[in-house]
Amino acid sequence: MTERTRVAVIGAGPAGLLLSQLLHERGVDHVVLESRSREEIHTTHRAGILEAGSVRALVELGLDRVIREGDRHDGIDLRFDGEMHRIDFRELVGESVWLYPQTEVFADLAARRTEQGADIRWQTSVVEILDHDGANPGVRWRDAEGREGELRAELLVGADGSRSIARHAFPEQLRRTWVHEYPYAWFGVIVEAPRSAPELVYAESERGFALVSQRTPTHQRLYFQCDPDEDPDAWDDARIWTELQARVAGPDGFRLAEGPVEEKTVLRFRSSVVEPVRHGRLVLAGDAAHTVPPTGAKGLNLALADVLILAEVLEGWLAGAGDDALDEYGRRSSRRVWRAQNFSAWMSRMLHTTPDEPGFERRRRIAELRTLVESEAGRRYLAEGYTGWENVR
Amino acid sequence: MTERTRVAVIGAGPAGLLLSQLLHERGVDHVVLESRSREEIHTTHRAGILEAGSVRALVELGLDRVIREGDRHDGIDLRFDGEMHRIDFRELVGESVWLYPQTEVFADLAARRTEQGADIRWQTSVVEILDHDGANPGVRWRDAEGREGELRAELLVGADGSRSIARHAFPEQLRRTWVHEYPYAWFGVIVEAPRSAPELVYAESERGFALVSQRTPTHQRLYFQCDPDEDPDAWDDARIWTELQARVAGPDGFRLAEGPVEEKTVLRFRSSVVEPVRHGRLVLAGDAAHTVPPTGAKGLNLALADVLILAEVLEGWLAGAGDDALDEYGRRSSRRVWRAQNFSAWMSRMLHTTPDEPGFERRRRIAELRTLVESEAGRRYLAEGYTGWENVR
Repeated sequence: MTERTRVAVIGAGPAGLLLSQLLHERGVDHVVLESRSREEIHTTHRAGILEAGSVRALVELGLDRVIREGDRHDGIDLRFDGEMHRIDFRELVGESVWLYPQTEVFADLAARRTEQGADIRWQTSVVEILDHDGANPGVRWRDAEGREGELRAELLVGADGSRSIARHAFPEQLRRTWVHEYPYAWFGVIVEAPRSAPELVYAESERGFALVSQRTPTHQRLYFQCDPDEDPDAWDDARIWTELQARVAGPDGFRLAEGPVEEKTVLRFRSSVVEPVRHGRLVLAGDAAHTVPPTGAKGLNLALADVLILAEVLEGWLAGAGDDALDEYGRRSSRRVWRAQNFSAWMSRMLHTTPDEPGFERRRRIAELRTLVESEAGRRYLAEGYTGWENVR
Repeated sequence: MTERTRVAVIGAGPAGLLLSQLLHERGVDHVVLESRSREEIHTTHRAGILEAGSVRALVELGLDRVIREGDRHDGIDLRFDGEMHRIDFRELVGESVWLYPQTEVFADLAARRTEQGADIRWQTSVVEILDHDGANPGVRWRDAEGREGELRAELLVGADGSRSIARHAFPEQLRRTWVHEYPYAWFGVIVEAPRSAPELVYAESERGFALVSQRTPTHQRLYFQCDPDEDPDAWDDARIWTELQARVAGPDGFRLAEGPVEEKTVLRFRSSVVEPVRHGRLVLAGDAAHTVPPTGAKGLNLALADVLILAEVLEGWLAGAGDDALDEYGRRSSRRVWRAQNFSAWMSRMLHTTPDEPGFERRRRIAELRTLVESEAGRRYLAEGYTGWENVR
């Protein structure tokens, strides 16, 4: 069977669903195809920090649970030499960020789109991209029952994550991928314990970086720098807590509230940027087009920003502007993406140790942290990046 | 023959001579020993930028030729993507820096000290440090005629540059040296030509970094990034100008004023910090204790700052405070040194390409430069560092 729609959205993560919502608001007929089940996406823990601009975009769409149930964070703490140094976003740039896990953003968008009768096909994989550089683009899909079909559209949007199928339809010779691999990863845990700190604590230590994050009043998200090949099974609760406590220890007596470890995962660090993000009638958005290491909390925010730009650009294109008009999306997205890549690399390099890090380099990093926190300009420069460059002056 | 003095200063570069001046003002008997001739030091081209604080210190000592004949620079230009981006120090931090070559600082100090009858022994090498961790420290010296002698003092100050003899008297097991080598160097030229720009231009380019500096109305100082093993003789004037012009070329049509190349040298990039800076009755100052790459223009300024701190600390010690009081010098100097190391490394890494630099990294650097110049906070953070952290708020 062959169906037709105006836009085929590949992927129903936050980027795909936000695009679906924006297309719906503009009355644009579209279909969303997602290889996973709704339940599977909803139970995969991902990023937890939303920039002010991301929150405003959700609220403008009436998705205001983030405001009611998310935690507004007015700053972060940089911790080094065993001391806390607050970066007060509100004071520095008049902005906040929100602790609101990606799974909740997904849940809100999925509920809304379902309620509005959106055509979202869960557990339906795209097995082939068809004629995306011709006049009749489409996708061949296969669902959980093994049924196959074709969906033809005017435009295909690949919002299918870092392992994007869509991206591979770009001819190798036209696609450039800029990549940076970091020599470390994060060991992430979800623990049943009360909060150890009201806001995120980015902790530099001789043993490596640690991040104290939060989730709910009863469960917390904590991370510590590890080897990319670390085996989570080699770490029992006692070993995890010993390591985490050692990394945040200091003369101020700061300690983490302990409890059972409920989940353990190793998060790889990788920066990548695909250029261009359009080939013919196929465009990429979110992780399909770029990935960032988690240190700067930029991944989800970039994905949402992509889609907000794309929806704007699509209006003109759907109204009849030529395909070149689509490139406005890549131009505007690219600036933000590279800014975020730099921010994420900066935060990562400033806070993490490297295997066999020379003594000079660690001392330089501590000096950088100290120079930064002692300067209003330094703190503001960091706050501008963390909150998403909304109030740069 | 054995003589006695209170302080033996090893080295008559700007650090040693400024210390001599400060000791003279405090009525402290001292001798300065310098292996080179006055002429040799005066004709060796070195750094050219003085921080506001360095200038104030000189002016307070009545050495105000820098104000009359030096060029006040109220900012620098960062050049990338073929466009100028001014960092306006005066507007950002209310400070300026002065273009006033190190040789002029040396000339002013040497003239003043000679006029005041200082005991400066040119072409007199220290061949041995004596008993510096005992009660009767001193040095054995040899002059240009081959005469040898001993000079005993209460304190020995090693201000004898990056190849310091004094430093080697520190027992290996007590001395730690933190080092970073950069995979590039600067090819520096002095050319007979008018100015190409009123202030320093730090230019990023695909071919590598270039720095447009000035010296006099008729002679300019220019640099371009090169391999540390580059052979100056392999570069004739035409090749030098082609390379320099290519590195500053851009859509704005900026070009360098050309003229005969009068001097060519390759400047190595090296960061090093020796800790501690005191052992017994021997202390290190300036390049003997730390070196920085030239990008941040910090070397001479750090040397002068060291000596200003040391002179203050010496007052207490000479008045009878114990040797531990001397460690106040290292503590205060160290903070500034590491801050400068970070600043110099940051400027160097942001502006230079590396051999086989990955595409990701260059794009990240351009994004860093763009984010920086578009943010008042970013520009101010850089200006604070460049002008010497006098007006950090």
